[in-house]
Amino acid sequence: MVINVRVVVALGGNALLQKNQKGMYTDQLENARRTAKFLADIIENEPELELVITHGNGPQAGAIAIQNDAAKDIVPPMPLDVINAETQALIGYMLQQSLKNEFARRGLKREVVTIVTQVVVRRNDPAFQNPTKFIGPYYTEEEAKRLMKEKGWIMKPDPRGGWRRVVPSPEPIDVVEKEVIMKLLELGIVPITVGGGGIPVVFENGCFEGIEAVIDKDLASSLLARILRADLLVILTDVDYVYLDFENNAKRIPLREITLNEIKQYYDAGHFPAGSMGPKVLAAIKFLEAGGREARIGHLEQALNVIKGLSGTRIKP
Amino acid sequence: MVINVRVVVALGGNALLQKNQKGMYTDQLENARRTAKFLADIIENEPELELVITHGNGPQAGAIAIQNDAAKDIVPPMPLDVINAETQALIGYMLQQSLKNEFARRGLKREVVTIVTQVVVRRNDPAFQNPTKFIGPYYTEEEAKRLMKEKGWIMKPDPRGGWRRVVPSPEPIDVVEKEVIMKLLELGIVPITVGGGGIPVVFENGCFEGIEAVIDKDLASSLLARILRADLLVILTDVDYVYLDFENNAKRIPLREITLNEIKQYYDAGHFPAGSMGPKVLAAIKFLEAGGREARIGHLEQALNVIKGLSGTRIKP
Repeated sequence: MVINVRVVVALGGNALLQKNQKGMYTDQLENARRTAKFLADIIENEPELELVITHGNGPQAGAIAIQNDAAKDIVPPMPLDVINAETQALIGYMLQQSLKNEFARRGLKREVVTIVTQVVVRRNDPAFQNPTKFIGPYYTEEEAKRLMKEKGWIMKPDPRGGWRRVVPSPEPIDVVEKEVIMKLLELGIVPITVGGGGIPVVFENGCFEGIEAVIDKDLASSLLARILRADLLVILTDVDYVYLDFENNAKRIPLREITLNEIKQYYDAGHFPAGSMGPKVLAAIKFLEAGGREARIGHLEQALNVIKGLSGTRIKP
Repeated sequence: MVINVRVVVALGGNALLQKNQKGMYTDQLENARRTAKFLADIIENEPELELVITHGNGPQAGAIAIQNDAAKDIVPPMPLDVINAETQALIGYMLQQSLKNEFARRGLKREVVTIVTQVVVRRNDPAFQNPTKFIGPYYTEEEAKRLMKEKGWIMKPDPRGGWRRVVPSPEPIDVVEKEVIMKLLELGIVPITVGGGGIPVVFENGCFEGIEAVIDKDLASSLLARILRADLLVILTDVDYVYLDFENNAKRIPLREITLNEIKQYYDAGHFPAGSMGPKVLAAIKFLEAGGREARIGHLEQALNVIKGLSGTRIKP
């Protein structure tokens, strides 16, 4: 009996949109095709891997929120759970098409499919009392105050300028479609799932129901890796390693191999910024604390080397 | 060995949006929940059925096209293939959540999941020379002429007033994710697929690539039923039967049971309007011509009775 190695690979925003790009479809598709090559490298070299792909959706969700807002007098705007769903298909479509093409080009017989995925959060999660995640368009203070009254939104001045809506980022606690994902994996199919952290839902009175929130994609990927009893959680981003003193180019130190306890100390000491490396490190910590064998954080372009353990930060129990 | 009966059920627009509704999320969700009850009736009474769900997306695709247009100076608009993908997740999310809740309420152990699905068309399909399907916002003649120049769109006066974009509605010839759909069915999972006719793609030089078109959802459902070698194609809509002389309330005749040859004669004689019953009847004809056992067209609220053969038009070879 062959025991396959099961790996959850979480793609960062750079997999689909570069920082200087406006979000043109042609640019996003080109990035998806580039990303597909790095992922196909993994399948081609490690054909026994069971691969799950997850991804962020920040720029795409922002764009759809702006579109909803711009047309709000003609078309009823959709809530955040629906906007997340839309980004899952928008991004999933590009990734699944690009991967399928790349697999075929290399003669790899693997199917890949995007699963619309709901992720459960608790309504009494403290995040709902203290929303922190900025989303959607920028408004003037006056507009913001009107929207807060009209829609019950919470809005705050964004350090980047203007007022924006802030929404809760609660902790993910379950993946509704986990059984399906598990079965697809067992069949050798590559699922693209929990996109943008998953569609946030609560489970109350035996029913799932959408809720307005944004789930961190790295934490959702970590949860999924725990549920699937994955061997590896791999977070791919636009830096080669997790660094100490990242902002200080001269002094910064890449972490190549580190234990759970060590990185927890750095995490607790505030070494990793909340908006970037923080959630990735926390996702790795949670995965290892739940019994995961190893978590890795590395560069998208080094995907295969990260899988092989030759690049990226390796975090072990 | 038990041979399961495999059924493709195609939901019409009324499953998610009633004619008098504006597209509020709360209304769409309520409709999805109502639709889920009719579909759960099938699973509860015919637990051995392998069920595939497909659906239209007209109003939702229209809404997203309007949103794209309203924000076009801030956010790059997405092409039609991406808009279709977005509607697949928007509608699929609501249906899959409502079905899962309804299954649980009735103690039915069935998983349900939305598969982002691409459908192949031919670039040399004559529809690309003669686009006929109106989509998106209404414009003045002046705006329309500017857009035709700027974007290369084809625009025509819509009989309902104003100028609108017209896009090709080519014939679907393959479903890219068919292997995955087949495997899900074999596992007893209910897939929601080829939403809105599927994401239109062409297959050229070994690669799939999106193309701007809108595929008829009934024809895509018929194709899927043929690919899956389904026993039954069931098209649910807002009338009980296919009628002759439908517009004439006093004289109209419901077709209860009819052969392929008979309905083909009525179809060729122009009995079924292009915008409504025409594509449904054509979808049934194509399914039966390819060896399907039976096609049925009936009312969504009668879903179980249609499956049982007690309501709806039954079309046999």
